[in-house]
Amino acid sequence: MSDPRLAELSRRLPALRLLATAAELEHYGRDWTRRWTPAPLAIALPAGAEEVQAIVRWANELRVAIVPSGGRTGLSGGAVAANGELVLSLQRMNRLLDFNAVDRTLTVQPGMVLQHVHDAAREHGLLYPVDFAARGSCSIGGNIATNAGGIRVIRYGNTREWIAGLKVVAGNGELLDLNRGLIKNSSGYDFRQLLIGSEGTLGIVVEATLKLTNPPPPSQVMLLALPDMDALMQVFALFRARLVLQAFEFFTDHALRHVLAHGAQRAIDGDYPYYVVCEFDAADERQQEAALSAFERALEQGWVSDGVIAQSEAQAAALWRLREGITESLAPRRPYKNDVSVRVSAVPAFLHEMQALLAREYPQAEVVWFGHIGDGNLHINVLRPDGLAEDAFIAQCEHVTTLLAATLQRHGGSISAEHGIGLVKRAYLESTRSAAEIALMRGVRQVFDPNGILNPGKLFAAD
Amino acid sequence: MSDPRLAELSRRLPALRLLATAAELEHYGRDWTRRWTPAPLAIALPAGAEEVQAIVRWANELRVAIVPSGGRTGLSGGAVAANGELVLSLQRMNRLLDFNAVDRTLTVQPGMVLQHVHDAAREHGLLYPVDFAARGSCSIGGNIATNAGGIRVIRYGNTREWIAGLKVVAGNGELLDLNRGLIKNSSGYDFRQLLIGSEGTLGIVVEATLKLTNPPPPSQVMLLALPDMDALMQVFALFRARLVLQAFEFFTDHALRHVLAHGAQRAIDGDYPYYVVCEFDAADERQQEAALSAFERALEQGWVSDGVIAQSEAQAAALWRLREGITESLAPRRPYKNDVSVRVSAVPAFLHEMQALLAREYPQAEVVWFGHIGDGNLHINVLRPDGLAEDAFIAQCEHVTTLLAATLQRHGGSISAEHGIGLVKRAYLESTRSAAEIALMRGVRQVFDPNGILNPGKLFAAD
Repeated sequence: MSDPRLAELSRRLPALRLLATAAELEHYGRDWTRRWTPAPLAIALPAGAEEVQAIVRWANELRVAIVPSGGRTGLSGGAVAANGELVLSLQRMNRLLDFNAVDRTLTVQPGMVLQHVHDAAREHGLLYPVDFAARGSCSIGGNIATNAGGIRVIRYGNTREWIAGLKVVAGNGELLDLNRGLIKNSSGYDFRQLLIGSEGTLGIVVEATLKLTNPPPPSQVMLLALPDMDALMQVFALFRARLVLQAFEFFTDHALRHVLAHGAQRAIDGDYPYYVVCEFDAADERQQEAALSAFERALEQGWVSDGVIAQSEAQAAALWRLREGITESLAPRRPYKNDVSVRVSAVPAFLHEMQALLAREYPQAEVVWFGHIGDGNLHINVLRPDGLAEDAFIAQCEHVTTLLAATLQRHGGSISAEHGIGLVKRAYLESTRSAAEIALMRGVRQVFDPNGILNPGKLFAAD
Repeated sequence: MSDPRLAELSRRLPALRLLATAAELEHYGRDWTRRWTPAPLAIALPAGAEEVQAIVRWANELRVAIVPSGGRTGLSGGAVAANGELVLSLQRMNRLLDFNAVDRTLTVQPGMVLQHVHDAAREHGLLYPVDFAARGSCSIGGNIATNAGGIRVIRYGNTREWIAGLKVVAGNGELLDLNRGLIKNSSGYDFRQLLIGSEGTLGIVVEATLKLTNPPPPSQVMLLALPDMDALMQVFALFRARLVLQAFEFFTDHALRHVLAHGAQRAIDGDYPYYVVCEFDAADERQQEAALSAFERALEQGWVSDGVIAQSEAQAAALWRLREGITESLAPRRPYKNDVSVRVSAVPAFLHEMQALLAREYPQAEVVWFGHIGDGNLHINVLRPDGLAEDAFIAQCEHVTTLLAATLQRHGGSISAEHGIGLVKRAYLESTRSAAEIALMRGVRQVFDPNGILNPGKLFAAD
């Protein structure tokens, strides 16, 4: 702690926990991207909102950049500290503060792990419905910073819909108490909504009030094998019309191969190019029969080649693992990731163009794709071919991403569906947001964070 | 049109429809508040987004204030033009532009009347669920500007949840195409959400893409008579736990008296202090029996004194009229209105304090209150006593509103639940939003509208 800025910080906050060993700097300085070399100044682990506020004020006075840090499971470099920033980890601020049965809300600190939020809601017979594979390590603060989506968006929407209130330390050091859990509040600009998805560039969430809902009725899980891509939208339209979908996820044979190699159990014999895992309400016989009849119709039409309905919770979990295990099974290969979206109606045309583009531009690399088809969200994972150097591989992927961004722009899509822009997609932001919008974003950032101390270089280049 | 600024506008846009007769200036210069004397410069009725953009650019160059104008059913003066502003009426931009069956969206111009949005959704077998009594004359653009709520918020949320995309001419003259109907789009600040509820101070909506949903299952409507205020929250908790509520609206005997005098039909004999109209899913016998059993339990507990379930659509409409007719029945008296909210859990304590405050501070005026209790939203209508001059009445009401605002602040509530701040509640904004938030709001406004030409003086005093 020989840095005079850190000495000043310790002088102001003698109880503040600070870390600065080489291992700690590396651990807290990176996220799941693994592309940048971590190089933070130090790690601060505040115990509460007051310490966060004092740190932000210190950072403003001494012009130190801060990287707000949650579970660091991000995939776009939003929590990377590679330029001497202070990492402000919310890890210790991980407590449940309140459950309100009448409002049906949980009030939590930002470092609370998503799985613990789920557990807390369930203990009270309720549901916090945002869910995705990183649930065991991502934090609710990070979910808010990226407006996290996941596998239940088709039924419940994104994180944005589940935030009733936020306490935030803005970049200017002010503590804001935004919306305070109100259902109706038409009293000027909704900064709660502005903060959601702002990737730590406007303020640091120090407390969140989350809406809860009734648990869904009993459901069933089905795995479908599809003969071709066109069948995908047909099956989706049929199932959406006849069932109450909770999830409708698809993946390719490439993805399946990796998951099976990673230890998952095959559920359908034979090889098919596309698969869907879907979950739907099955509270009574009528709904169960509707699901069977939809499946039979899809078979008759040739949209589905084979399928299986889980007969137990264990089997349902095994089917889900085929989809949810994909990211983990690919992780050792450190794939280059795209996370793109278009409107659902634009999916078929976009998919055709995208497939042609990927086949043409990645003649050697294996491309694994899967996604939340009911939300128009596709995840593309490109695996580095043996023998191609990392730098050359990234350069190739960035070139293809430029082409992909142009394709997305033609289809009115987004270069980031749910991972955020961070560092990884900064160069492509113009494909999704106009120059006028980006200028306004910079202006708004200037209002909230006049000295540009919060997560500089994320979302757009530092001034 | 002798004003040189208007001459310049006509020179730039020869086809632009401009109105300026005394009757037109009065008609378009006011909303439902009727407290300010309309005095606009003129009325512009653009035919499309290009004309709106040209008007905003003209206004920036010549420093002319613009009041964006929809159905002018607002209750807080947001659409009042009393200071020589140009009223920019979206009335001619009222067309349905697109229905997309796959995305389940309607794309509409901002001047489309809410009822026509409902009709268009219904024609396609779908539902646009935001609904309230002004549906026949309010415009969707105005709904967006105030984040309109209404009677189905308990089930479907506010307008905010139903906007998939917005085209907006910002105060700086730029045309923004925000979110473009995407379900997932984590690509920087969500200006769509920032614009919703901004009361025409950041930009003018020129096109909106609205999400639609499945129509609700068959429902039933019930009217309940309650013996006292404490029973209200008991019945609400019971009904919410056992039924799927679509609406849970309450009103007082005072409100009932006015509606009956206005031609509505009495549905329960006898006099009771409080009433609830609720609507709930009744798709099958199980749900219908659950409703009856909840009602019986409320009777047993003494929380309900009497009740009736509608046996036909006509009877359901008659029961609804008892609630929805209140505002209309009071309109000739030009009541002073408060529209406040607290968290649902804070309703009982707040209601007690509020009732004591109103009884003490309005010893002569009749106070009619009612509201959306399931959202924590109460509407208070104060009727001017005979013999009290209008000015003195308003002064008294503003004094009481100051006290009410302080009470709300103690309970973490909002001085505007769903009507917006406009001119009427500007003086009380500090009770709901902190000085730091208001400073940030002013900063954000400066970014979007650097010359302050959009709706100046609304939300906060002009600079």
